[in-house]
Amino acid sequence: MTHKEILAAAGLNEAALTGGTLAVYSPIDGAEVASLHETDPAEMPAIIARAQIAFRQWRNVPAPRRGELVRLFGEELRAAKAELGAVVTLDAGKITSEGLGEVQEMIDICDFAVGLSRQLYGLTIASERPGHRMAETWHPMGPVGIISAFNFPVAVWSWNVALALVCGNPIIWKPSEKSPLTAMAAHRCLERALVKFGDAPDGLSQLVIGGAEIGAALVDSRDVPIVSATGSTRMGSLVGPKVMARFGRPILELGGNNAMIVAPSADLDMAVRAIVFSAVGTAGQRCTSLRRLIVHESIREGLVEKLKAAYSTLPVGDPRASGTLVGPLVDNGARARMLEQLDRARADGGIVHGGESVSDAVPQGGAYVTPALVEMPSQTECVREETFAPILYVMSYETLEDAIEMQNDVPQGLSSCIFTLNLREAETFLSAAGSDCGIANVNIGPSGAEIGGAFGGEKETGGGRESGSDAWKGYMRRQTCTVNYSAELPLAQGVRFDI
Amino acid sequence: MTHKEILAAAGLNEAALTGGTLAVYSPIDGAEVASLHETDPAEMPAIIARAQIAFRQWRNVPAPRRGELVRLFGEELRAAKAELGAVVTLDAGKITSEGLGEVQEMIDICDFAVGLSRQLYGLTIASERPGHRMAETWHPMGPVGIISAFNFPVAVWSWNVALALVCGNPIIWKPSEKSPLTAMAAHRCLERALVKFGDAPDGLSQLVIGGAEIGAALVDSRDVPIVSATGSTRMGSLVGPKVMARFGRPILELGGNNAMIVAPSADLDMAVRAIVFSAVGTAGQRCTSLRRLIVHESIREGLVEKLKAAYSTLPVGDPRASGTLVGPLVDNGARARMLEQLDRARADGGIVHGGESVSDAVPQGGAYVTPALVEMPSQTECVREETFAPILYVMSYETLEDAIEMQNDVPQGLSSCIFTLNLREAETFLSAAGSDCGIANVNIGPSGAEIGGAFGGEKETGGGRESGSDAWKGYMRRQTCTVNYSAELPLAQGVRFDI
Amino acid sequence: MTHKEILAAAGLNEAALTGGTLAVYSPIDGAEVASLHETDPAEMPAIIARAQIAFRQWRNVPAPRRGELVRLFGEELRAAKAELGAVVTLDAGKITSEGLGEVQEMIDICDFAVGLSRQLYGLTIASERPGHRMAETWHPMGPVGIISAFNFPVAVWSWNVALALVCGNPIIWKPSEKSPLTAMAAHRCLERALVKFGDAPDGLSQLVIGGAEIGAALVDSRDVPIVSATGSTRMGSLVGPKVMARFGRPILELGGNNAMIVAPSADLDMAVRAIVFSAVGTAGQRCTSLRRLIVHESIREGLVEKLKAAYSTLPVGDPRASGTLVGPLVDNGARARMLEQLDRARADGGIVHGGESVSDAVPQGGAYVTPALVEMPSQTECVREETFAPILYVMSYETLEDAIEMQNDVPQGLSSCIFTLNLREAETFLSAAGSDCGIANVNIGPSGAEIGGAFGGEKETGGGRESGSDAWKGYMRRQTCTVNYSAELPLAQGVRFDI
Amino acid sequence: MTHKEILAAAGLNEAALTGGTLAVYSPIDGAEVASLHETDPAEMPAIIARAQIAFRQWRNVPAPRRGELVRLFGEELRAAKAELGAVVTLDAGKITSEGLGEVQEMIDICDFAVGLSRQLYGLTIASERPGHRMAETWHPMGPVGIISAFNFPVAVWSWNVALALVCGNPIIWKPSEKSPLTAMAAHRCLERALVKFGDAPDGLSQLVIGGAEIGAALVDSRDVPIVSATGSTRMGSLVGPKVMARFGRPILELGGNNAMIVAPSADLDMAVRAIVFSAVGTAGQRCTSLRRLIVHESIREGLVEKLKAAYSTLPVGDPRASGTLVGPLVDNGARARMLEQLDRARADGGIVHGGESVSDAVPQGGAYVTPALVEMPSQTECVREETFAPILYVMSYETLEDAIEMQNDVPQGLSSCIFTLNLREAETFLSAAGSDCGIANVNIGPSGAEIGGAFGGEKETGGGRESGSDAWKGYMRRQTCTVNYSAELPLAQGVRFDI
Repeated sequence: MTHKEILAAAGLNEAALTGGTLAVYSPIDGAEVASLHETDPAEMPAIIARAQIAFRQWRNVPAPRRGELVRLFGEELRAAKAELGAVVTLDAGKITSEGLGEVQEMIDICDFAVGLSRQLYGLTIASERPGHRMAETWHPMGPVGIISAFNFPVAVWSWNVALALVCGNPIIWKPSEKSPLTAMAAHRCLERALVKFGDAPDGLSQLVIGGAEIGAALVDSRDVPIVSATGSTRMGSLVGPKVMARFGRPILELGGNNAMIVAPSADLDMAVRAIVFSAVGTAGQRCTSLRRLIVHESIREGLVEKLKAAYSTLPVGDPRASGTLVGPLVDNGARARMLEQLDRARADGGIVHGGESVSDAVPQGGAYVTPALVEMPSQTECVREETFAPILYVMSYETLEDAIEMQNDVPQGLSSCIFTLNLREAETFLSAAGSDCGIANVNIGPSGAEIGGAFGGEKETGGGRESGSDAWKGYMRRQTCTVNYSAELPLAQGVRFDI
Repeated sequence: MTHKEILAAAGLNEAALTGGTLAVYSPIDGAEVASLHETDPAEMPAIIARAQIAFRQWRNVPAPRRGELVRLFGEELRAAKAELGAVVTLDAGKITSEGLGEVQEMIDICDFAVGLSRQLYGLTIASERPGHRMAETWHPMGPVGIISAFNFPVAVWSWNVALALVCGNPIIWKPSEKSPLTAMAAHRCLERALVKFGDAPDGLSQLVIGGAEIGAALVDSRDVPIVSATGSTRMGSLVGPKVMARFGRPILELGGNNAMIVAPSADLDMAVRAIVFSAVGTAGQRCTSLRRLIVHESIREGLVEKLKAAYSTLPVGDPRASGTLVGPLVDNGARARMLEQLDRARADGGIVHGGESVSDAVPQGGAYVTPALVEMPSQTECVREETFAPILYVMSYETLEDAIEMQNDVPQGLSSCIFTLNLREAETFLSAAGSDCGIANVNIGPSGAEIGGAFGGEKETGGGRESGSDAWKGYMRRQTCTVNYSAELPLAQGVRFDI
Repeated sequence: MTHKEILAAAGLNEAALTGGTLAVYSPIDGAEVASLHETDPAEMPAIIARAQIAFRQWRNVPAPRRGELVRLFGEELRAAKAELGAVVTLDAGKITSEGLGEVQEMIDICDFAVGLSRQLYGLTIASERPGHRMAETWHPMGPVGIISAFNFPVAVWSWNVALALVCGNPIIWKPSEKSPLTAMAAHRCLERALVKFGDAPDGLSQLVIGGAEIGAALVDSRDVPIVSATGSTRMGSLVGPKVMARFGRPILELGGNNAMIVAPSADLDMAVRAIVFSAVGTAGQRCTSLRRLIVHESIREGLVEKLKAAYSTLPVGDPRASGTLVGPLVDNGARARMLEQLDRARADGGIVHGGESVSDAVPQGGAYVTPALVEMPSQTECVREETFAPILYVMSYETLEDAIEMQNDVPQGLSSCIFTLNLREAETFLSAAGSDCGIANVNIGPSGAEIGGAFGGEKETGGGRESGSDAWKGYMRRQTCTVNYSAELPLAQGVRFDI
Repeated sequence: MTHKEILAAAGLNEAALTGGTLAVYSPIDGAEVASLHETDPAEMPAIIARAQIAFRQWRNVPAPRRGELVRLFGEELRAAKAELGAVVTLDAGKITSEGLGEVQEMIDICDFAVGLSRQLYGLTIASERPGHRMAETWHPMGPVGIISAFNFPVAVWSWNVALALVCGNPIIWKPSEKSPLTAMAAHRCLERALVKFGDAPDGLSQLVIGGAEIGAALVDSRDVPIVSATGSTRMGSLVGPKVMARFGRPILELGGNNAMIVAPSADLDMAVRAIVFSAVGTAGQRCTSLRRLIVHESIREGLVEKLKAAYSTLPVGDPRASGTLVGPLVDNGARARMLEQLDRARADGGIVHGGESVSDAVPQGGAYVTPALVEMPSQTECVREETFAPILYVMSYETLEDAIEMQNDVPQGLSSCIFTLNLREAETFLSAAGSDCGIANVNIGPSGAEIGGAFGGEKETGGGRESGSDAWKGYMRRQTCTVNYSAELPLAQGVRFDI
């Protein structure tokens, strides 16, 4: 199928894709696949106002009824899974299985959120005063601005949208300028669900297309109480304080610099598979991609040999082709940054395997590379940075304590893992003295989280949580209520004040 | 007892109180009661480093054992309740009952936190993959910087300290320059508990005395991952973004502009008592003090008459004297700001009752005033600001919807209440379309929260939560863990990646 | 449509419905609509053994995957809603809207359980010992025997089945002999879902048709660790102890004797509608049907007049006809018991309005009655019994305390409600000193629970809980786990035991 | 100290201990230490009535205030720890450290329950209907009958009493006839706390002394809604059905037949210490005592040798003597049953080491034995029974699956453990396909639970849960509340019923 056919199959016709100012290129071949109409920044106040009006209606719709909208959305996603997955591939360059996996994740979070819609549990609490009832309830907050990144062009949005809608909040979505097509296709699914739902307010979900100015309107408006932003640490370091300064609530999912510790007892065959998937999957462009390998010195040599062997046979190429495991980087800039980073690594004493541009047997115009395996003498500065590309740095360790220290000694805090069959090592890694990341796995790579858990991490990862567990509380306001149904007026803490 | 005797009874002797650069005055009579040695800002890095070292030890101490320290602290507070309450009165000018109530609140939070120390519940979560175990656990975060305000010189600190210690975090406390003496006396109680406990690490709890520079060191340091700050909205608008910019976690408890709606069905006798206590208690210097009265037009006149009668007999004076209900403002600056604000209210058409300086039959040197009742034609700009003084603005309403609109139409979001015997009104007030405050009460004034609930609010109140419910999670980091104990390596969302 | 056509539309063809020993009659017209093959009691051990084998496989299927089966089941129910609802009407005599409502309830619980399938939350718990991890997890229990009653021939089963399947348990269902057709039709839906699911074990869900002997096999078998039984108190008083005696877990939903207190401030129009629906809906054959009306003496007369007026115009007749609100009783025996009970009420001084057999303009062969309103001088013994028919006893009260006392003074504890606009009355009714029922409503009748809450009650109601909240825990076993990953062996409570 | 002095130190003077009909013997030397006045069974109705009256007052006391009573009780226990521990030793024959540990457990549960008293969390739940509020709250139940066993004469009672009191329930305690003295001493502590508390109702806690008839009064009375019984499976099989038959709630803690699996990778030194403590501690008379050792065949021989060596040096004797690890059995009957059981084991092919009566160097009159280590060819019938004595059966296994099968193949389900350093084995043991016990430990013996977790198990263990987690819910009734504050009356599930 041509690019156009793929987009048409997902409901995006010529008219939607042409005549605008935002050129969109496919990572597959660098071809311009659309020139989109951008949202005029001057319209943003009206868009936000529309969301506020929708909010006043939507917050009063019972949550299980709001859940019905999310259920219908999930049904649309199920029906359009193949088509939408293909747009993910076209727009973000992911291989087919990962494109489908991303849509599956959207479906999963819808199922989860439908269940939530009959929960949204607050607490009833024992009061210290007779004739008093105390409770903590959760209420809708208002419009949620969602700023998403190119590498998960729709899944992370769906985490936000499924929770936000169930929680009673309208949404305004600014997708990455690099992958707006998937956003448009996914939003169409939601629009179809809205039609089936029937009586949702206008402006409940709005998609805005464009660049920094559009995003800034969401970040700066007091009428957007929540801003959920996924992207780089640099972006987060700007967005977070701005939202905070106007007393909004930022939900930040920023960089990761995710490591795996491989202990002597590890099942090495499993480890190799996990390493390769998590280091080169999505061409190393997941926020949870494996970037650092911390191997016990006793097994380092053997493991590196196995990895070199595995890396040497990885099928790099057109992500649409069956058999391809490594698709393109998002653009040439990303490739340039990768190569530059590898030079820095070499300068620090690193030995680089792979990490070269590929131009044979791949679609021309795309930024294809062989994944890089870099043996480092130590964790130098370039290792402590996140490079959004398939670079895997290998270091070695002597004691588990050292390995954990090295794992934690980066500014980011997203994901981490250990491969070991030793109970004490595994539990130590998960303990208060273990990994300092928001995600910590044992015998699993750092990427590929299930939606049932909360996703995010501390430090430069930004501290936000999305997806499962009680991440929904990030989309609501908490209210502590006390009702005095007695005819007395006792004060807490035994204070006396008799007028 | 003289000021000195009171301080000595609380363990603060001459040496601790003299020879320094920070002059401390009692609101009671404006007398200088101490000149304290200030912490040298240059020492802050070492202080923070000491806390970090303590952290590495304390995080490994089992939480129930950490709870034992908090239990011992509670016992010290019980033993010193009268003495510590007297220092609250001396240092913050509160009446005796309120001084004791503040200590009782400290005791309550200790009891609560001891129970928590055997909980700190995370979740086990159903995994979608066979042979996998998923869980969400909570781990200590590191040193907590606590910046507290003069008006609750010790209770808010105790909320933080009880939770932080149980959660595995060291603390560094910068109390207000206006009320450092209560801080010193309370910290002595904790030090005694530490001695009885036996083997806590050095630097687990540190008290730093001084001004903005000291606070800035906590706000700016990456080694203080949590900063819990109580104070003005202005302070919060500076602290929040700074902490956020370096990827720390701010817990902000800022301004309130708390209202009561009085409905036609209200029990007016109860309402009057609640209004007076919450508007003039602590001389209107609680963050939860009642500042706005929104009365149904049908009962406004009668209620205002009752309030004028009640206000006219309020005993203003020495807070140590039995019978006094209204003590001094914290200083002359606070009184000047109050009088100035009343002039603004008059200019907006307000009719002011009371609100005058008092100099007869009160200790000389203190900033005594009669509480002000101000009948306003509408909610003008001066009403929408928080003035930390006993000013109560009275407005009227026609429909409950209007009343709620007016109640929410201020930038702050801390506390709120309604007096009504009508079920529909009460529940509407507590619903998603009701009060937008973090605290919402029915037939109780806005102040005097129990420690079992979470304390805080959205909007300019800063969004933080302290004290009960799961506020403890604000002091820990969340970790989503998945353990693969199978010999397979399935990927989530059904992704295939076979190398 | 004829009875046969209705059954055929729901997938029950001639072969399934004929040639057996169990005659099934429709309450609509008393016609025999099927003679079903009964399960041979001698087969029960093999059936139970099959469930045990299925269990060993199903418990290892990840819960979210188990949830997928329940999602598919929900989809089948959505698709078959009209047809299945019609069988409810045919089999149990419910009016069309209630038949459809029962299916909707099945759909709702499926949505809820799908969400649960990624939760089934246990706890991680702070351990008092260093190097120890403590958790509470929930595991599947084994086969669940479900014994359901005629009046909710499928909804209550669906509560059990949705939870049991997600929790990892096989099910064996013995429906009432009076309404096995709906059971068969509903089980077909599940079977279709199983086919779409693909790889569920044989014997995961089994339907057994027959009488007491079949039920006894479930009650007595140690291989059926959970028996969930809905029905009469008499049945429960036999089943509960038997299950307990062999250390199984009974989940009992037994009788109710549900009251409404109508306070002076009640919105009487709403009250009348709620009373009529909950007293005569399903012809008074819900376990939550309203049976006792406790009215404040000041409004009794007026309310009784309104009710008499409303009762006099209630359309009694064919439940399939649009407009009908009161369908038939389940059989003539039920009618006879109703009339007999009315005689007892008269003997106790009751004045009976309505309560007569209807033979005009109704399908011949059905047990149609006009609902009975009985003014009682006091709560006599016959009032304290549950009669499964549309009898509403009216008593009066003076003080709320008395009303609550009267409401609680029956052996049953299922549902209860109050109509009042007075906050104090409403909260008192819901307080520790209020209703002793498992369900307590304000300004809603006692029937018609949402699936999000737990359903059940104490006293003769049996103590079980089904449906929402954490009722799923009743289908799992709880395990407290402690893992020592240190190299030390400390004992809890500081015990020393040095060998 | 003499027996009398020990009892006097714990507040039990001559008058309390003499002149009655119940002879109490110390296991230490078989001496009669008291002849107690027994409660007249005819008094039981009045005692229960008193509890019911206390209930109506206590349920309205705010839970945090009820918690204050439990806090005071904990303080009394701290003050009397040594004295009370000595009575445990005297009354139950435990060694000093275990006697003190039992009191410590009482203190721990008090701390925990005090924290709970500001929680007792119910849920607020999202309603499907507009203008409706849904919540699940927990209310007091009424008097709790506590029937406790001799082997934990006070700790298990304290679990019940701390939770029951905080939950708002009075208690009536029937301790074992074999250890009533500790009960009396512990109850004195509670009485002192009640005096300090001040205004608790009479009859809040009552102690009844006597035998089966007394117990039966609690079991049979509808006015004792909860019966918490600890003891033998035989007792539970009688009590459970009886309580159930009158619709009460039984909380049963019955037999255990607790196993340890020792895997090849186990830390054998740790395992040996854990085995010995848990098999011979409390002379094998804990419900969680280790009774079955399932050892991998590859390490069986070595482990048995180590155990034989350890067993051969165990100090058996006076439990008051420092150094003693194995005190007496409770009485001669217990010794006879142990010896008889060993004969059965021999008949089944078992090789018995130890297991002999001891009369040298021990107090005369006590039932002292050397612990028995029994090598069994397989898990025969006698192994599948619980014998309350220090008998440890040793079996071997080949695969972990077999070991788990063997571990689960007994009728009891209390506690279990595995010693392994292998992550996969540990996690498998804890999984849905692992141990079927309520307690499952890794690298810890089966005994010595922390109070933070729930205690109990399924199968013949009875299914009850006490102590930590949400065991408190077993002491309360759950109420699902829905409040309609709108002026509409929508029905759930979309049912229409328009009169």
